[in-house]
Amino acid sequence: MAAPVGLPPPVGDRAAGGEGPPATQLRPGLRREAYLDEGVFRHELVSVFARSWCCAARSAHLAAPGSQLVAAVAGESVLVVRQADGGLRAFRNLCRHRGARLCLEPSPQPARVIRCPYHAWTYGLDGRLLAAPNARELPPLETLDRGLLDVEVEEWAGYAWVRLEAGTTSLAEEIEPQLLDRFGDPATFDRYGIERLAVGHEITYDVAANWKSIVENFMECYHCAPLHPELTAAIPEFRSGYGSVSGGVGRGARLGPDVEAFSASHRASRPRLRTLNDTDDRLFYGVILLPNVLAVLVPDHVAFFRIEPLGPGRSKVRVEWLFEPEAVADPAFDPSEAVSLLDTTNLQDFSACERCQLGAASTAFDPVLVPAEHVMETFHGWVATRCSPGPAPGPY
Amino acid sequence: MAAPVGLPPPVGDRAAGGEGPPATQLRPGLRREAYLDEGVFRHELVSVFARSWCCAARSAHLAAPGSQLVAAVAGESVLVVRQADGGLRAFRNLCRHRGARLCLEPSPQPARVIRCPYHAWTYGLDGRLLAAPNARELPPLETLDRGLLDVEVEEWAGYAWVRLEAGTTSLAEEIEPQLLDRFGDPATFDRYGIERLAVGHEITYDVAANWKSIVENFMECYHCAPLHPELTAAIPEFRSGYGSVSGGVGRGARLGPDVEAFSASHRASRPRLRTLNDTDDRLFYGVILLPNVLAVLVPDHVAFFRIEPLGPGRSKVRVEWLFEPEAVADPAFDPSEAVSLLDTTNLQDFSACERCQLGAASTAFDPVLVPAEHVMETFHGWVATRCSPGPAPGPY
Amino acid sequence: MAAPVGLPPPVGDRAAGGEGPPATQLRPGLRREAYLDEGVFRHELVSVFARSWCCAARSAHLAAPGSQLVAAVAGESVLVVRQADGGLRAFRNLCRHRGARLCLEPSPQPARVIRCPYHAWTYGLDGRLLAAPNARELPPLETLDRGLLDVEVEEWAGYAWVRLEAGTTSLAEEIEPQLLDRFGDPATFDRYGIERLAVGHEITYDVAANWKSIVENFMECYHCAPLHPELTAAIPEFRSGYGSVSGGVGRGARLGPDVEAFSASHRASRPRLRTLNDTDDRLFYGVILLPNVLAVLVPDHVAFFRIEPLGPGRSKVRVEWLFEPEAVADPAFDPSEAVSLLDTTNLQDFSACERCQLGAASTAFDPVLVPAEHVMETFHGWVATRCSPGPAPGPY
Repeated sequence: MAAPVGLPPPVGDRAAGGEGPPATQLRPGLRREAYLDEGVFRHELVSVFARSWCCAARSAHLAAPGSQLVAAVAGESVLVVRQADGGLRAFRNLCRHRGARLCLEPSPQPARVIRCPYHAWTYGLDGRLLAAPNARELPPLETLDRGLLDVEVEEWAGYAWVRLEAGTTSLAEEIEPQLLDRFGDPATFDRYGIERLAVGHEITYDVAANWKSIVENFMECYHCAPLHPELTAAIPEFRSGYGSVSGGVGRGARLGPDVEAFSASHRASRPRLRTLNDTDDRLFYGVILLPNVLAVLVPDHVAFFRIEPLGPGRSKVRVEWLFEPEAVADPAFDPSEAVSLLDTTNLQDFSACERCQLGAASTAFDPVLVPAEHVMETFHGWVATRCSPGPAPGPY
Repeated sequence: MAAPVGLPPPVGDRAAGGEGPPATQLRPGLRREAYLDEGVFRHELVSVFARSWCCAARSAHLAAPGSQLVAAVAGESVLVVRQADGGLRAFRNLCRHRGARLCLEPSPQPARVIRCPYHAWTYGLDGRLLAAPNARELPPLETLDRGLLDVEVEEWAGYAWVRLEAGTTSLAEEIEPQLLDRFGDPATFDRYGIERLAVGHEITYDVAANWKSIVENFMECYHCAPLHPELTAAIPEFRSGYGSVSGGVGRGARLGPDVEAFSASHRASRPRLRTLNDTDDRLFYGVILLPNVLAVLVPDHVAFFRIEPLGPGRSKVRVEWLFEPEAVADPAFDPSEAVSLLDTTNLQDFSACERCQLGAASTAFDPVLVPAEHVMETFHGWVATRCSPGPAPGPY
Repeated sequence: MAAPVGLPPPVGDRAAGGEGPPATQLRPGLRREAYLDEGVFRHELVSVFARSWCCAARSAHLAAPGSQLVAAVAGESVLVVRQADGGLRAFRNLCRHRGARLCLEPSPQPARVIRCPYHAWTYGLDGRLLAAPNARELPPLETLDRGLLDVEVEEWAGYAWVRLEAGTTSLAEEIEPQLLDRFGDPATFDRYGIERLAVGHEITYDVAANWKSIVENFMECYHCAPLHPELTAAIPEFRSGYGSVSGGVGRGARLGPDVEAFSASHRASRPRLRTLNDTDDRLFYGVILLPNVLAVLVPDHVAFFRIEPLGPGRSKVRVEWLFEPEAVADPAFDPSEAVSLLDTTNLQDFSACERCQLGAASTAFDPVLVPAEHVMETFHGWVATRCSPGPAPGPY
């Protein structure tokens, strides 16, 4: 039986403290409709994803004006374009003439214009309609009001963050409270300098589970001992059932005594990220930036997860492993030990999420949360708030 | 034209006799919604399958306590577990913590406990919650009321029979009337000793047809002459249009005069089952045990079909060929001649069911039953009774 | 920028003339539901396709009585059968006994009867029920009223045209106005003698787009310059943005000065069709015969397209290349140059239609038509008229 007697629940555990219920109580999880129902899923796309700043794609490598990204956000295709002034603009990936998708995948070369391949309607990098065939049969193009449809975009941490439905809060206003809640300060996260790191590896996972299951899984370490022997060998304190996310404000988990690095071999292959300080050394931080980002911060790299919800029971998770640019540029660069440990853990996690998705198909599905999982309730409340008031019945 | 003048309709043919309509009348079949509609299908899962004793899986080979089966019953996953006292217990295959599916497939080794791989909640073979990580943060487990959810199970004929929704009738009370209706006595079926036979071969068919079409096909032999040249070569009386199921109470069909065994070569490869008597020799019995079992009883083996409804237009049919354990244990055991004849017949039947499924997609679908098919009306009435009163409009 | 200064809009351009809006105005296209919604699609099957004469299949090669075709029309399977008198009959492909689909694919040999493989109910080529097994248990077959269900069929241009729902207009009454509208006379089309040509090649395209997008694409040449470099190299005047369909009544587009034939090499491989005259030489005609036929007429061959709508976002397009029978019979016959140019063009077109289908999935989809596309409005009006009054909300 895996019921290790680990560390006591840390001081500061949110769910355990304050006016809340006693920690020993079981609390209800979400109803099965939250994971199964097509209508609930559509409602979440509109109410959670379209109204939130979603991480769309890594943009740091888009240097030249006219470089482009194509990303799926809240079920819509978005085109992100580097401007001449170094900023980003984002547009619906939709020609304003007949509605063709402009870009199926970004061209490897920076473009000077955005041209629809169907009828050659041509837009500037700023989205203005510049030219169309048979233009003399048309009203003056500048009066047509058929420029590309703007989408809000901000660039942060080397990523393009997009909000489909214009809102009043800035990206910083959404991110900073989450970082404060997690670290107690914004400086810890900033020290990893994610914006200047280089992608050394990437894996896309096709997961037969609802996006919320993937977030929930990242929120608790109660599963770490039974599910993750490799992970808990590297970070023994995870056997306590409390991880770095569920462990309280500022909590980082410590590598085991003989573990040099967060890698399959426990050996270090590279120095720590050069902007870190001694405080960060030997620590593992999990971070969640709702609605669609998970990140793992360890001394010598960062793994950055983007979740793309595809349906009630299907999600895509893209993970990018980020290293010092010099390390990646080195011909001898080999990230396999670092990648392998997290990849093994991810596959275990996503398989568990898929088991819960199968369970949600049962009419008897009726999950409960133990104290080590109470942090999930905050997430459920966050989703419920974004979704309400709304037309769909709330399963949260 | 295949319109052989075969045997006259047997005395005792239910549809032909009594106060019913004259045998020459065409009778209506089911409406297309019965085969096509997703709502009707869901209603049948709940009203027919969940409320009936369904054959879930062969259990005879589960000897050791802790041996397990995973079966799909009425759209739900069920775990069947051999107990220390030799009995069976069945549970929803659903962890009572976060709802993960406990077993994706049974382990080849008997287990001492049932443990969820996600968070290691651990149950006894009797379903009681025995242990959970961080247990001292939880209320006493025995007070939690989070043991596995019991499902009714009985063992008969070497199979586990499960009823999802608890009812008042025993398995025997559902099976015996069907056997009496078929054989006139329960002894004939019992003589085959299916519980002690061994599986010598198995085939799973993926059929693009509604489950009721598969049952209907087994209920009439009006198709035997045109569709089954191999079958009718072995059993010429099937050319009459009346088979063993539609042929009346107690009716067994006789192998042809030069046919030694029910096999592709017509040659016998093994003696008759040792519990049979001379009365059973050279006879073929079809048997239907609603809702999901078909069986073929011949002198030297039994073929046992389980139908699993997957959707309005899709069903899985698992066929196990059962022989004397000594025959199967013989290194020279070769069931291919026996399997081949029935497999050929099954493929012809399922292809015909798939044609009817294609036909049901037509707005002009309007089936009629001839006298040799009137036994189907009993089946349609049985389904209608189980489905009513209910929320779905009855297409029966 | 592809904005070639080509020919002026031709005199007679319908959209540009008369009381209509000024040619420079943008006009709205269809709402996204027209391309996406399952209910709209079902409504179109019933209201547009089932009530129209649809081209079902090439029938010219069906010489012998009893030769058969299987075609999908408006979501229904139809069996087309050559009669002894040389005419065609069409039936629902549905046995009147239990509703099995009679033919999955036509037999290569002419049949003397139509026999259902399930129970051998047997029909004459005229659909009458001739025989059934156990017939003496049945009422006299001729009184049963269970003959095959007739479907209206006419044969024209070597094709079988089927109308599922009986109506009052003949095929000619539907086709002739379309030919007059296109050519100003019926004689031009007739001169191609399509009924006597032979199929030299055929390709089936599986297109992830709504059927209306495929028709719309064929209605405008505004996309020709940007999308079709090979096509516009052969027919330079297509660079004007006006093609042969959108170019006005009677308009044929002319091959370029050094272009011998409509082929990838621009070289001619065969003489012009022998029933053409000098007027037709060096001309390319596009023709649309709603709801489901597109055709390309060039001097030495005809390409005949049949669109089969499979779902809101999926269509099958079957293209047959038709040549002089003597040419096809020649052992040296090689249509690859002719096929290749149109196949290249088709792939470009269908890819563009698929981009528009992706665009229609966006909530911001809001297409507009330029003057060179105004002919589409006639099509949209035609669909709207067929669909109304009807239960579905009209997205047209």
